[in-house]
Amino acid sequence: MTNEDDDDDMDIPALRAEINEIDQQLMLLLGLRFRCSDQLAEMLLAHGMEAPDDNAEDRIAHVEALAEDAGVSPALAVQLMHAVVSEVNSNLARIKASQSH
Amino acid sequence: MTNEDDDDDMDIPALRAEINEIDQQLMLLLGLRFRCSDQLAEMLLAHGMEAPDDNAEDRIAHVEALAEDAGVSPALAVQLMHAVVSEVNSNLARIKASQSH
Repeated sequence: MTNEDDDDDMDIPALRAEINEIDQQLMLLLGLRFRCSDQLAEMLLAHGMEAPDDNAEDRIAHVEALAEDAGVSPALAVQLMHAVVSEVNSNLARIKASQSH
Repeated sequence: MTNEDDDDDMDIPALRAEINEIDQQLMLLLGLRFRCSDQLAEMLLAHGMEAPDDNAEDRIAHVEALAEDAGVSPALAVQLMHAVVSEVNSNLARIKASQSH
């Protein structure tokens, strides 16, 4: 720590690097999310239970509320969650197909 | 640590809770990203430099490559990044308007 007077302490290259790291973290977190939802789907199907995202609309509404608190546009959050749910459903179809063979 | 035999150690409610936490982390990370890009925009404009996302296509291509490594569909990554860049550009327009008054 050399100088902590104000926000300008973080210089332009450092901010660009931080944004790059955040983008990488977003991808890692999305990857983790899909591995979790695949695992959940496999467990539910193995127990003869319903697909995991029958409550997708509730989940999207919940994340929309979280978005506001986090300073993210609710429209962007809803758009992301719709894309995530669509991907989860594709993965689920693949998992179901692989289990039925 | 009580039992680490296999993946079934993590039960269904715990997996659902983890997915909820990941969704919350995604929102927090997106919020942080927009605060960083707003700060970058303010710094660049204060220095009379160009808007930060003139290199948006390069950034999107880079994240698309990261997505594959993270196990995320590149199409989903590109869709998210286009939405993020669009939001950054809206924020930038707001910041420019506020600085010009």
